[in-house]
Amino acid sequence: MKCRRCRGPAVIDIRRHNAAFCGECFVRHCREQVRRAVDAFEMIAPGERVLMAVSGGKDSLAAWDILLDLGYACDGLYLGLGIEGATAGHVTGDGQQYSKTSGEFARAYAHTRGAHLVEIDLPGDVGFDIPGAAAAVRRAPCGVCGLSKRHLFNRAALDGGYDVVATGHNLDDEAAVLLGNVLRWDGPYLGRQFPVLPATPGFVRKVKPLVRLTEREMAAYCVLRGIDYVVDECPMAAGNRHLAYKDLLNDLELRSPGAKASFLFSFWERGWSHFAADAEGERTELRPCASCGSPTPDEVCAFCRLVQRVG
Amino acid sequence: MKCRRCRGPAVIDIRRHNAAFCGECFVRHCREQVRRAVDAFEMIAPGERVLMAVSGGKDSLAAWDILLDLGYACDGLYLGLGIEGATAGHVTGDGQQYSKTSGEFARAYAHTRGAHLVEIDLPGDVGFDIPGAAAAVRRAPCGVCGLSKRHLFNRAALDGGYDVVATGHNLDDEAAVLLGNVLRWDGPYLGRQFPVLPATPGFVRKVKPLVRLTEREMAAYCVLRGIDYVVDECPMAAGNRHLAYKDLLNDLELRSPGAKASFLFSFWERGWSHFAADAEGERTELRPCASCGSPTPDEVCAFCRLVQRVG
Repeated sequence: MKCRRCRGPAVIDIRRHNAAFCGECFVRHCREQVRRAVDAFEMIAPGERVLMAVSGGKDSLAAWDILLDLGYACDGLYLGLGIEGATAGHVTGDGQQYSKTSGEFARAYAHTRGAHLVEIDLPGDVGFDIPGAAAAVRRAPCGVCGLSKRHLFNRAALDGGYDVVATGHNLDDEAAVLLGNVLRWDGPYLGRQFPVLPATPGFVRKVKPLVRLTEREMAAYCVLRGIDYVVDECPMAAGNRHLAYKDLLNDLELRSPGAKASFLFSFWERGWSHFAADAEGERTELRPCASCGSPTPDEVCAFCRLVQRVG
Repeated sequence: MKCRRCRGPAVIDIRRHNAAFCGECFVRHCREQVRRAVDAFEMIAPGERVLMAVSGGKDSLAAWDILLDLGYACDGLYLGLGIEGATAGHVTGDGQQYSKTSGEFARAYAHTRGAHLVEIDLPGDVGFDIPGAAAAVRRAPCGVCGLSKRHLFNRAALDGGYDVVATGHNLDDEAAVLLGNVLRWDGPYLGRQFPVLPATPGFVRKVKPLVRLTEREMAAYCVLRGIDYVVDECPMAAGNRHLAYKDLLNDLELRSPGAKASFLFSFWERGWSHFAADAEGERTELRPCASCGSPTPDEVCAFCRLVQRVG
């Protein structure tokens, strides 16, 4: 197996591209895939400041690494979720220290690279952790976590004067979300699923620079670049539907290499526009949250309501 | 396990309905599902004459049986495809006599029921068989077969004065086709996928009365009603993509019972309308085929071109 580019010995084979790469050419290939995604979807304009949300996992650390290498002014943002065994039934083994370990990997990468990492600690700075909050409001932890991340990422970007928040969602993540949205034919969700969410008053732009790269590729990237990351899935996500959809798409990909990427990209080329109006139709008038000032359709925004209920 | 309706001993369990049925109540349940599909999609008006396309398999024989029991004036149409070992590489074992056996089951059912069966024999009446035609034009047999069926079903309905052609496509078939269309985000195909194709000049209405019933349910129906049918899949279809999509959806259904039906029916409720214009956009002006008179965008229709090339 020879590298498609330099004809040296290859270390990774990408079946959907029908190509193999040596380590150096693979790293360059990953950068080019991010470059293509950023350009095609106009994710980041020249001179803009980017805040990369890093979890300590492979995807977000790889994305940060690539954005820095592509020359973007990109700081990291680590949000400590307080997932460390608070719900003993869910968390086992290494999961006991999940958030602590994740934070250490994010800090270590920032240190090695000499990059700036913004940190927010949910228990210390806001007053609750995800397992405790989920139990208190009797909701699935992934829902409470997503709500908190959306709010705090945006607030941190506004406070720090960043133009755009980037997240580490990869091709597998997006394809699994798309499959879930399609199985329910959820028009508003389909209309909102796009690699760029434009800025609106009170909200910075959000972008997903890894949409052209898979989980497996990001793991290989981190190994080849010597980036240490937390390997375990979040212990609270075990058994969720998203993971089942990933399995189904992996089965499909095994039978027809390229099918997963084609499903996702043909959606953005030909499917998405059919549902854009569904997402628009859901927008209601927004006013400042009485507690934090974020735009919200309600008196108090969903995050501040969560803080009030849990605090 | 007790029958949901009569509390007698149940013989079949339908997980997506969270219900079990005894034989008699299950047969009634199947009839009601067809009744609901026919009514909801306005498939057949009172007094209309129906031509049921029967292959000799479980689905189309069950559909014919149910439409007769519901009181419709419904004749059968059997099309002999000449699949009997012409392509030795594809056909093995029982497949050697696939079309011959299929025809016998269709005739036996019609005889038992005292129903009228229209017969067309592709080799005898038109001059080619599916394996031979596929080889001659170097196309996949399923494509040549579909083209021939669409043309000949419609011609037989027009010649016999029928108002509507019914086919035995079930919930599994339709969900698999939908998955294939969605994986490619094929707008025109999505826009045409509906349980009723309305009549247009030169084409009778086409309907799929089994869309609310699965393959497994139709097999059980035939067993319970004592209807003998050809069990093998068509030997030429082995390994096609449609079957792989069925496998994927069966995996999904196993994990979340009801997911397959929800995928299909939420498409018709909320997804389909988004693509209706894509199908309209593809329509071009039609004129009579120079050879057979069927409406076609070309000088000679696709079926007559096939006959000319193969003959």
